Amino acid sequence: MSGAVKRFIPMFDRVLLQRAEAISKTKGGIMIPEKAQQKVSEATVVAVGPGFRTEEGKTVPLGVTVGDKVLLPEFGGTKVTLDDTDYVLMRDTDLLGKFTE
Amino acid sequence: MSGAVKRFIPMFDRVLLQRAEAISKTKGGIMIPEKAQQKVSEATVVAVGPGFRTEEGKTVPLGVTVGDKVLLPEFGGTKVTLDDTDYVLMRDTDLLGKFTE
Amino acid sequence: MSGAVKRFIPMFDRVLLQRAEAISKTKGGIMIPEKAQQKVSEATVVAVGPGFRTEEGKTVPLGVTVGDKVLLPEFGGTKVTLDDTDYVLMRDTDLLGKFTE
Amino acid sequence: MSGAVKRFIPMFDRVLLQRAEAISKTKGGIMIPEKAQQKVSEATVVAVGPGFRTEEGKTVPLGVTVGDKVLLPEFGGTKVTLDDTDYVLMRDTDLLGKFTE
Amino acid sequence: MSGAVKRFIPMFDRVLLQRAEAISKTKGGIMIPEKAQQKVSEATVVAVGPGFRTEEGKTVPLGVTVGDKVLLPEFGGTKVTLDDTDYVLMRDTDLLGKFTE
Amino acid sequence: MSGAVKRFIPMFDRVLLQRAEAISKTKGGIMIPEKAQQKVSEATVVAVGPGFRTEEGKTVPLGVTVGDKVLLPEFGGTKVTLDDTDYVLMRDTDLLGKFTE
Amino acid sequence: MSGAVKRFIPMFDRVLLQRAEAISKTKGGIMIPEKAQQKVSEATVVAVGPGFRTEEGKTVPLGVTVGDKVLLPEFGGTKVTLDDTDYVLMRDTDLLGKFTE
Repeated sequence: MSGAVKRFIPMFDRVLLQRAEAISKTKGGIMIPEKAQQKVSEATVVAVGPGFRTEEGKTVPLGVTVGDKVLLPEFGGTKVTLDDTDYVLMRDTDLLGKFTE
Repeated sequence: MSGAVKRFIPMFDRVLLQRAEAISKTKGGIMIPEKAQQKVSEATVVAVGPGFRTEEGKTVPLGVTVGDKVLLPEFGGTKVTLDDTDYVLMRDTDLLGKFTE
Repeated sequence: MSGAVKRFIPMFDRVLLQRAEAISKTKGGIMIPEKAQQKVSEATVVAVGPGFRTEEGKTVPLGVTVGDKVLLPEFGGTKVTLDDTDYVLMRDTDLLGKFTE
Repeated sequence: MSGAVKRFIPMFDRVLLQRAEAISKTKGGIMIPEKAQQKVSEATVVAVGPGFRTEEGKTVPLGVTVGDKVLLPEFGGTKVTLDDTDYVLMRDTDLLGKFTE
Repeated sequence: MSGAVKRFIPMFDRVLLQRAEAISKTKGGIMIPEKAQQKVSEATVVAVGPGFRTEEGKTVPLGVTVGDKVLLPEFGGTKVTLDDTDYVLMRDTDLLGKFTE
Repeated sequence: MSGAVKRFIPMFDRVLLQRAEAISKTKGGIMIPEKAQQKVSEATVVAVGPGFRTEEGKTVPLGVTVGDKVLLPEFGGTKVTLDDTDYVLMRDTDLLGKFTE
Repeated sequence: MSGAVKRFIPMFDRVLLQRAEAISKTKGGIMIPEKAQQKVSEATVVAVGPGFRTEEGKTVPLGVTVGDKVLLPEFGGTKVTLDDTDYVLMRDTDLLGKFTE
């Protein structure tokens, strides 16, 4: 079963995303309970589809690539579990933005 | 009646899918009751339509082929029974992704 | 009135379909009451329209022809009665698939 | 007022239709009350518009002409009264089919 | 304020219409109360817009011109009052048909 | 803050409009209370956007220019306040018509 | 974490906006409680996406650039928090207008 993520190719304009883990320490290093933590909506692109299929049948490459750090909307996308890890599948047009290095 | 599946061609951009059977043993080999099993949403492509018909009448080949292992959304598609076996018919754009070998 | 079906041409991308009759015997030849029978959703194409009219006014030939055995969704289409026989009118994109010989 | 129908030109892809009268005799010639009669949904095309206007502004001729016998869906269209006679106005794509001679 | 109608140009594919007055006499010349009168849905085109603006930005001339007698649907359009007279503004595709001389 | 209106450019196909003030005198010069006044829906175009952006990315100039007297629908548009004055922002396709001089 | 805003690129036709702070003094310099303040809907463009992706896959540059002062509708957009500051992400077609210098 291991390696399912590596073999996974999203269809068309979908991207597979892994949410960043919520930081559970304050800047001073004190652990805070989970409810007090800010909702994390940053994620890393794990796999991308070949592209958006236009009405005419052309394939348009996506706006993100594997490894990109992106910002997700609070709702939307499909939760999938591969290799016992939770991911989110979302179309690239539903992503809010990405972070450059 | 046998062979109905072999003779079946989905219309346009539809694909015929057979869901993977739920694995009913734990890694240690112990049988677990069905309710404790994880919902299986992997499937194998059994038949594919000729392609998506564009607004201009062109046919665009599908993104999957017979034999592909794919990931399905939890809901959607049409259940059909051929040769006493259950299948799911779904448009290729509704598939979430596929697994490479 | 006889022959109304022969003279009937569906408009555009519609096809006229006659549902297969439910098989009322088990494999062993025993008659079973109708409620125990499986819902039949196979049909034969009786007449086809000239084709789908695109937004630009072109006509695109249909994906089925007269005599094709097709699979219908459980719901949808329009029931029409011609020559005291029930038929279903449905757009070809709503058909699920067809059976080759 | 007489002749309003002759002077009437439906707009774009609309057609003016006159429903066939319900046959009020059985084959044996016995008059039957109206409620027992089958709902008549055949009609004759009385007038047709110049054609469907595409998104680009082109006019696409209709699929029926004056005098055609057509089959109507049970619901839809607009009832209009011209010269004290009831007609139905309907887009040609909403017609189910036509009968050839 | 007089002359506001003459100076009025509907936007794009809208037309300004003045409904025909309900005829309040029977053919025999007897006045009948208003409720017994048939709902009048004929109208005269008073002003027309320059045309429908396509998705590509082209202007497509309308299918009616000033002075045309047209048939309106019972509902729809926007009531406007110019020079103390009531008019209806409606897109030309919502008109049902027109009468030739 | 003064001059905000002069510096304001509506986006795309939006226009900034200032409603005409309700005339509070009858023709004979008698002041009438506000409720008896007719709802004023005429307005003057104060600013216009560069144009409608088509699906292909072209900009199509608007059908009105600054200074045009237009007729507005009763509902719709967005109320904005600039320099302590109320305006309405509306897409040019939602305007009903304009008045020529 | 500082600098997340600088590294943020909105996807496609989205723009990142920072609302203007509500002015909490009257012209005469008296502090007024927050409820009496006018709802501020002006904002500054902080980051812009590469452009709108058309149905054919072309990218169309946006109508605003970083630094532009814009007017926002009261509702709409997505609130995001970067570097402990609140921003609004909105498609450029949802912006109402911009202010020139």
